[in-house]
Amino acid sequence: MFSENLTWPKDLIDLRGLSVAHLMAILDAAESFREVSEREIKKVPTLRGKLVVLFFHENSTRTRLSFEVAAKRLSADTLSLSSSGSSMAKGETLLDTAKNIEAMAPDALVIRHSAAGAASFLGQRLRCPVLNAGDGAHAHPTQARLDLFSIRRPKGRIEGLKVAIIGDIAHSRVARSNLIGLGTLGARVAVAGPPSMLVRSLSEEYGVEVYHRPEPALEGADVIIMLRIQLERQSGQLFPGAREYARVYGLSQAKLALAQPDALVLHPGPVNQGVEMTPEVYHSPQSLILDQVTNGVAVRMALLYLLVDNPERPKSLVV
Amino acid sequence: MFSENLTWPKDLIDLRGLSVAHLMAILDAAESFREVSEREIKKVPTLRGKLVVLFFHENSTRTRLSFEVAAKRLSADTLSLSSSGSSMAKGETLLDTAKNIEAMAPDALVIRHSAAGAASFLGQRLRCPVLNAGDGAHAHPTQARLDLFSIRRPKGRIEGLKVAIIGDIAHSRVARSNLIGLGTLGARVAVAGPPSMLVRSLSEEYGVEVYHRPEPALEGADVIIMLRIQLERQSGQLFPGAREYARVYGLSQAKLALAQPDALVLHPGPVNQGVEMTPEVYHSPQSLILDQVTNGVAVRMALLYLLVDNPERPKSLVV
Amino acid sequence: MFSENLTWPKDLIDLRGLSVAHLMAILDAAESFREVSEREIKKVPTLRGKLVVLFFHENSTRTRLSFEVAAKRLSADTLSLSSSGSSMAKGETLLDTAKNIEAMAPDALVIRHSAAGAASFLGQRLRCPVLNAGDGAHAHPTQARLDLFSIRRPKGRIEGLKVAIIGDIAHSRVARSNLIGLGTLGARVAVAGPPSMLVRSLSEEYGVEVYHRPEPALEGADVIIMLRIQLERQSGQLFPGAREYARVYGLSQAKLALAQPDALVLHPGPVNQGVEMTPEVYHSPQSLILDQVTNGVAVRMALLYLLVDNPERPKSLVV
Repeated sequence: MFSENLTWPKDLIDLRGLSVAHLMAILDAAESFREVSEREIKKVPTLRGKLVVLFFHENSTRTRLSFEVAAKRLSADTLSLSSSGSSMAKGETLLDTAKNIEAMAPDALVIRHSAAGAASFLGQRLRCPVLNAGDGAHAHPTQARLDLFSIRRPKGRIEGLKVAIIGDIAHSRVARSNLIGLGTLGARVAVAGPPSMLVRSLSEEYGVEVYHRPEPALEGADVIIMLRIQLERQSGQLFPGAREYARVYGLSQAKLALAQPDALVLHPGPVNQGVEMTPEVYHSPQSLILDQVTNGVAVRMALLYLLVDNPERPKSLVV
Repeated sequence: MFSENLTWPKDLIDLRGLSVAHLMAILDAAESFREVSEREIKKVPTLRGKLVVLFFHENSTRTRLSFEVAAKRLSADTLSLSSSGSSMAKGETLLDTAKNIEAMAPDALVIRHSAAGAASFLGQRLRCPVLNAGDGAHAHPTQARLDLFSIRRPKGRIEGLKVAIIGDIAHSRVARSNLIGLGTLGARVAVAGPPSMLVRSLSEEYGVEVYHRPEPALEGADVIIMLRIQLERQSGQLFPGAREYARVYGLSQAKLALAQPDALVLHPGPVNQGVEMTPEVYHSPQSLILDQVTNGVAVRMALLYLLVDNPERPKSLVV
Repeated sequence: MFSENLTWPKDLIDLRGLSVAHLMAILDAAESFREVSEREIKKVPTLRGKLVVLFFHENSTRTRLSFEVAAKRLSADTLSLSSSGSSMAKGETLLDTAKNIEAMAPDALVIRHSAAGAASFLGQRLRCPVLNAGDGAHAHPTQARLDLFSIRRPKGRIEGLKVAIIGDIAHSRVARSNLIGLGTLGARVAVAGPPSMLVRSLSEEYGVEVYHRPEPALEGADVIIMLRIQLERQSGQLFPGAREYARVYGLSQAKLALAQPDALVLHPGPVNQGVEMTPEVYHSPQSLILDQVTNGVAVRMALLYLLVDNPERPKSLVV
């Protein structure tokens, strides 16, 4: 199943530096764990006796629960640590807290942090594998991997697909990670968003088509990734308002009709129904949004399986 | 142990619709799990590999811990989720959050919510079993079941017992669920409370005796259930004050003497000592209050055992 | 490994009353659990099926996580309970909450509380073993034990060592517990701190040398324990400011040079770098601070192993 000469980085911080073979190996491993979640007993003994620490500095229902379920399905023990209630409140630095966690000999550290680069910073300084669960606007690699997985399952491939990404491209770590992953696997990507939510360099940096109107991006798309508008964070400066945004960028049945008839609709969740898309689109058979949640557990099982030292891990994967 | 033709609902939302045979089956199962909690090793492998999600929207030490202990004693994995720190803070609806939890393939969802009907609403929309751990003023069925269990253990029966329920009948989900359970099993129930804490329809709806003074309810009672006064929620409108309430409705040794000499005293906890009852009554041998906590774990083990698909579950219970 | 006639108290509240043999037995057990944390699979089945409740009324990353990791490494189940989100918010007393926890039949209760005496109070009233994880300014016995363990590992002994303790001796439960433990094991202890952070009785009560300046305490020391300054709690009355404190009491390379060349530096953490010690000292090879964290898990495993009824527990330890 795995290429003999595939070596892996110690940490998974973003999607840069992972080859097509690496991404495919992750998706293949996720496929077998996806099957586990359909069994009556959804647990495998792979990481029995291992300790996975979940260190979350930002609210996140989906990602934290998803990692926690993934770790438990692999029979690992988990420890949850949030900023509140931790020594962070006593003025300790991120590195100090992380070093202290490491001194308890965990087998992996999963981190979500508001600062871009936090995961990479820790990965370089800790001995245990560090998995980035989202760092500022930088990267959200496990989300991107589960998007790739969710697309490949029904479509059978990524290469050659047209993927539209609509919304706040400039400030979205989901977008950033997807641009890299989709590019690596040979998709043709078109992005669209208000001028304040795009950056000029996108086209050169990632080789994607950039539009201000969603229609040309959606036209003929095989896959549509709608990004979340952070209504609770919007200062009102980036766009005139949710209603106006919904009218121009929100995915309606009419806009969806511009894409391929079997186009898939993805969203990292939670969806602001009526803003990023209409309730009809959210509940339509083309929507993969809840499927993404199920796949998220499988992909995170795959990553823990591949990064944490364990008896089943293919020897060729060890660095 | 179980009737061959007993079928079960998918969810346990309230006590309506459960026959005497159902209630007895639950109490019998709880009896065997009560025995487990007295062993040196208090754990059984019944739900090994299963995932129970605890989704609590209101503070609750006893109920949450009780379900968590129950699930762990059955060897299930647990995931705890509260409103704060979840995507609920991002404006997601209850159903969306629940659907996302379901997409992670849990084997049961336990929910406590401030809105009456929340558990039923989710039960109708989710594939996994939903257990109501209290929804607004509507129902608190696991509390009622553990009360029934706590009464039946020493008394050997429910039928024909006189049960007094004293306090805020109108706003208590514990009272509501107990009225149904006690009525189904043939107890004679008398309730008493200030006029503002009673509703006129009680007598017709549940066939109980209704008094404003506690004395006639207590007279000859075999069991006394004292309800909790929500001191922290009282706006001061329902009664003149804790001191006055304690004087009239609080259970003192003198009032307790009106009941049978071996009358049992129950309370869902936490008790406001000196308000609902005197410290003497709280600590008296007739008080079952801590026993109720122990029984709560056993009853919740029974319910998880009966609702969650597992190898030991009697086939006749499957819907 | 254990003396045949060694009997143990039900609880571990402070270090008083524990003989040299008891302390040595704890350190010896910790040594074997320290070895477990270096294995690939760091888990032993000793407490399988047991329930350890962690009841924390004060923020504490290290201590709570350390106990949680220790319990899980012993295969126990854990339940975490903090003040917020518990019935404590409903005005229930500490004893009522603890009695309710006990009614769920846990096998041990670990408590951290802001009130001196809280752990002892509960230990006397509950049937299950109570482990004090810090109570006000009174005691922090597991911290002291891990300090003793951290010193004995490299030094091979405690007896005859000169140990300097620098900082807020008067208000530190770590200091108090260490004074007892070090005294019992025959160390020569010298303490130093601002007059407002010392109490007159230290010399008579614990038989230690007391200085206002750190230099005479540090001179020739084999071990230096720096106490944490609670910057976030300081009202500004105890000392003129962090900068002034750092200048006089902070451990610099120059002050460290007064001690033995192989002197060890300990700190209960989290360290205020630049206040209690310079970053150079914190990161120097003489600093045991992260080693203390690793040892903390081993010592807590030892204590749970010795206090909780389990098949491996030496019979001679049973009271």
